[in-house]
Amino acid sequence: MQITSLENPKIKYLVKLNTSKFRKQEGKFIVEGKHLVDEARRQNVLIEAYSTIEKEDYIFITPAIMKKICNTDTLVTEIGLCKILDKKELSNKLLLLDGVQDPGNMGALMRSAKAFGFDTIILGDGCCDIYNDKVIRSSQGAIFKLNFVSSNLKEFILSHKEYKIYGTNVVNGISLSEVSNDNLIGVVLGNEGNGIKDETFSVIEKNIYIPMDNTESLNVSVAGGIIMYELRG
Amino acid sequence: MQITSLENPKIKYLVKLNTSKFRKQEGKFIVEGKHLVDEARRQNVLIEAYSTIEKEDYIFITPAIMKKICNTDTLVTEIGLCKILDKKELSNKLLLLDGVQDPGNMGALMRSAKAFGFDTIILGDGCCDIYNDKVIRSSQGAIFKLNFVSSNLKEFILSHKEYKIYGTNVVNGISLSEVSNDNLIGVVLGNEGNGIKDETFSVIEKNIYIPMDNTESLNVSVAGGIIMYELRG
Repeated sequence: MQITSLENPKIKYLVKLNTSKFRKQEGKFIVEGKHLVDEARRQNVLIEAYSTIEKEDYIFITPAIMKKICNTDTLVTEIGLCKILDKKELSNKLLLLDGVQDPGNMGALMRSAKAFGFDTIILGDGCCDIYNDKVIRSSQGAIFKLNFVSSNLKEFILSHKEYKIYGTNVVNGISLSEVSNDNLIGVVLGNEGNGIKDETFSVIEKNIYIPMDNTESLNVSVAGGIIMYELRG
Repeated sequence: MQITSLENPKIKYLVKLNTSKFRKQEGKFIVEGKHLVDEARRQNVLIEAYSTIEKEDYIFITPAIMKKICNTDTLVTEIGLCKILDKKELSNKLLLLDGVQDPGNMGALMRSAKAFGFDTIILGDGCCDIYNDKVIRSSQGAIFKLNFVSSNLKEFILSHKEYKIYGTNVVNGISLSEVSNDNLIGVVLGNEGNGIKDETFSVIEKNIYIPMDNTESLNVSVAGGIIMYELRG
């Protein structure tokens, strides 16, 4: 199959998927680049693949069409239309994000979560859209293998008392090296500038702190990576 | 003092500091925002501060001039002209960067390095300019407290045999949990896409790997953060 017109309905549909609202409504998103298209196929979320080079299993599109759909500065030759993943059961280790906004941090956190067995991410209010192209790129494919739940974190924590939930504010903390790695654990990371919200904090019993020069602070994806490494499943 | 003209030589000088070449030539760089200006003053690297609000110890400039100098989308009210720091003695723990290019990763690595006592960073060939405004912003002030050395990494490693230097490639590796935290240690992190260069790799005896789901990989600043946390000084 070949598409050469920008007015083709399929192409108009793909362009519209650049907005978060339309992605949610349709339950679909786009990935850019061969690596991510291949990974989407392996993970059974690929609906259709498009390429500016004619080849089997791809719908051929012109470079002008690719440019219209894509967000990357460096133009890719392949994109994939993917379905948003179905929810699975909660994993034993949970990562709870209380308004993480930077797409690079979000993607890096997904990689670490998958690497260390935190297979479910709870997306609290104010998080960036995870199907944003920058998040997908920086997740390097980890996004296809994780379970995502969108929920107000206070409500989630109150209704999942079986999990031991740790915050990462500096007050009332225990050292990461002393946290016992229990079976059902959740780690809450806050917003880049403002940390964990007061309402979330009000239902968290304990905070973890990372032993370090305490005049310094860490990037949120680094802090999350270190904690998940220590409490890996 | 007040400056209201874009043609003022001081302003032209500040604008030119947006290029890496001019920063190197002059040994000066600009920081943006009150937090970084205050931190630069505390660390004795501030030469002059500029503000769009009239106040003591600041040179007043108009918002139009600020816009001309600044790189941030959200306009700041303060900037500082700073001197590039003098080199100090090498610290016991070294972070060696073999072409880390993303400014966000570079800044996050600086924060972790300072937090975990890796007070000297060796900048190998191909690293991004550390006085780039994005690096400075994401370093959150850690840049003022670190010691930087620019050097080809192969040459540096061969001439500093007193340090035990660890790579982070996947082959020939020992688990991070088994690395003995010796006094003089260096950790080499590679480029985001290509890892450690072959010529650097040729003079590294041992690699560290981070225990994890080995089908996954970590963002370089997260991997560096975890290793420096475990081997902190």
